[in-house]
Amino acid sequence: MDFPQAEYETRLTLAQQAMAAAGMDALFINTEAEFRYFSGFRSLFWQSPTRPWYLILPRRGDPIAVVPEIGAPVLARGWIRDIRPWPSPAEHDDGVSLLADAMSKFATIGMAMGRESHLRMPLNDFHALTCKNFVDASPLLAALRFVKSPAEIALHAKICTIASDAFDRVPHILRAGMAMETLFRHFKIALLEAGAEDVPYLVGGRGPLGYDDVISPPDNTPIQGGDVVMMDTGATLKGTFCDFDRNFALGYAADAVKRTHETLWRATEAGLAAARPGATCADLFHAMANVIGDGGGNVGRMGHGLGLQLTETPSIIHWDRTVLREGAVITLEPSMAVKGGGMLVHEENIVITDGPPRLLTRRAPRELPIIAIN
Amino acid sequence: MDFPQAEYETRLTLAQQAMAAAGMDALFINTEAEFRYFSGFRSLFWQSPTRPWYLILPRRGDPIAVVPEIGAPVLARGWIRDIRPWPSPAEHDDGVSLLADAMSKFATIGMAMGRESHLRMPLNDFHALTCKNFVDASPLLAALRFVKSPAEIALHAKICTIASDAFDRVPHILRAGMAMETLFRHFKIALLEAGAEDVPYLVGGRGPLGYDDVISPPDNTPIQGGDVVMMDTGATLKGTFCDFDRNFALGYAADAVKRTHETLWRATEAGLAAARPGATCADLFHAMANVIGDGGGNVGRMGHGLGLQLTETPSIIHWDRTVLREGAVITLEPSMAVKGGGMLVHEENIVITDGPPRLLTRRAPRELPIIAIN
Repeated sequence: MDFPQAEYETRLTLAQQAMAAAGMDALFINTEAEFRYFSGFRSLFWQSPTRPWYLILPRRGDPIAVVPEIGAPVLARGWIRDIRPWPSPAEHDDGVSLLADAMSKFATIGMAMGRESHLRMPLNDFHALTCKNFVDASPLLAALRFVKSPAEIALHAKICTIASDAFDRVPHILRAGMAMETLFRHFKIALLEAGAEDVPYLVGGRGPLGYDDVISPPDNTPIQGGDVVMMDTGATLKGTFCDFDRNFALGYAADAVKRTHETLWRATEAGLAAARPGATCADLFHAMANVIGDGGGNVGRMGHGLGLQLTETPSIIHWDRTVLREGAVITLEPSMAVKGGGMLVHEENIVITDGPPRLLTRRAPRELPIIAIN
Repeated sequence: MDFPQAEYETRLTLAQQAMAAAGMDALFINTEAEFRYFSGFRSLFWQSPTRPWYLILPRRGDPIAVVPEIGAPVLARGWIRDIRPWPSPAEHDDGVSLLADAMSKFATIGMAMGRESHLRMPLNDFHALTCKNFVDASPLLAALRFVKSPAEIALHAKICTIASDAFDRVPHILRAGMAMETLFRHFKIALLEAGAEDVPYLVGGRGPLGYDDVISPPDNTPIQGGDVVMMDTGATLKGTFCDFDRNFALGYAADAVKRTHETLWRATEAGLAAARPGATCADLFHAMANVIGDGGGNVGRMGHGLGLQLTETPSIIHWDRTVLREGAVITLEPSMAVKGGGMLVHEENIVITDGPPRLLTRRAPRELPIIAIN
């Protein structure tokens, strides 16, 4: 397990208190991040869609794991004692009877049904469950996961430092004529060499007046003098994410790009100044939006929660009234159109404290860094 | 897009023929692999659970994409013309009305509800859809994706060669005293250096008599002389996977391990001999199981489909009567207990042809490779 057992026991206790307050008799978990959050079971095996994994957290008592046989010995090395395996994949009844049995003594079962949630099991199997009294536990789960423990924050800090080190290597990697996909490959290697365990996320863009989108995979067109190049990475350590980007210009940059970069830097400063316990995500959004004016990009929000997933609730957006709390780890991610061109995006990762937020990322420079063409 | 437009048009045509035969008026797609399969839109942005992405394939006419604004410009560079964006994440109605409208003219809508399927949208939003006549399209989608085109097979071949090259580097990487997590990091770098675009999957195990499981992340205990070390990787090129493992012993190996390795090699040979069009997955399973006898490991199946995902249907298992077809890409993955110890697993990737299968991976050696301790 990635944390001491006490960490998982605390998570369970807090979940049980929240269940009691919400009138739920149990929580039903079927997605990777939530399964890991409560069980401590981390495996890339979730990449395979073949087998479902289930966890029941009762309001009182111990968690029940209903899992494929292939995972039972691994799970047994952790802290869950009640493990009910079956030989998956099964032709008929792929864990459904076992799951229904584990649920049978609970009247009202909470599960994630709301914002950002998914159902990681076949709908046919979900419909076959005899319990029909499922209620939405998405807000409950989001609130639990929003505030991180000191041990979680330490992991975030470490992976942010690793990725900051890797970004510091970019001036030694990026060369004129290099294809974006070559740059991505070299940057992933730099992240791994700097100590990242994995690089589940790397997107980016380039262009003389910014980039057209922020979610593309790299292409094989060469990076040219005057391009601004952005890479945005979610690297991990023990399954804990960083999520931030950096911009670099090759050789020189258009004035509009330089000005936009500096405006985004100031928007982030405004976000840092507003990021206090008690402020809402909407407050944070407006603090940054006020600096940007009406030149926003098309990303729709200016940051989000961060943790076991690249993005977690809440959203730094005008309608999200989630109140920031000490220990919350979030990203500040203002974006802005470049006059006559594409867009630029900045991103930093912070943790909310009782004073100014703690920067987990090495702060981007105010001026757009320009890499010399050799 | 990763393939010429004609490839996607063919996929749509075949899907439309299958819909007609099954009496479906449209297909509803909400998961990453299926969305990419039909639209050509590939992005790691699916790592973020925040935004849903929807695709409707009508039985006649053009696909309709209902997608977050952030993805619309990227999607528009592909072949889908009918793109209906909304500003996601939205406080209310996160694409649901747009989706319901796009569905409104279809009476019977197929969607994946069966084996290996998930619902990548909030249950609350799914329940809010007015169309209630959803039928299970899992078998239809599985059949379409089972057989690969020459262009897909070429990508599989390329990533399998890249990963084979990286495995050939392991004797130069693995050292006594190295922690598994260090080995994993170096091996990921070797994969990227060999030309892999990404390494979404790497698991493994070690021990003097095999390993206890095949899905664990690496730990920081040192690899010792006499250990057999296994790494199993799913690396990608244009989002297309390889999925195979290799075993190495450090310095020397127990006779039981050597014998098990050789038995698994022979089991794979039997699988290769049985892998012909017309044979079933069950036939393939029994061909390998007969060599292994009653010493099977606990993996439960001996291979699976391979493609846009690390594992796809079907399963090479005693109950799966899926008939192998020319162009199907599958893994052969026999596993076996080591007498008095853990287990070993072998894995190769092949494509079914009208003659003997074509090996995509560089065949593992019959004898367990032993890396000298320097």
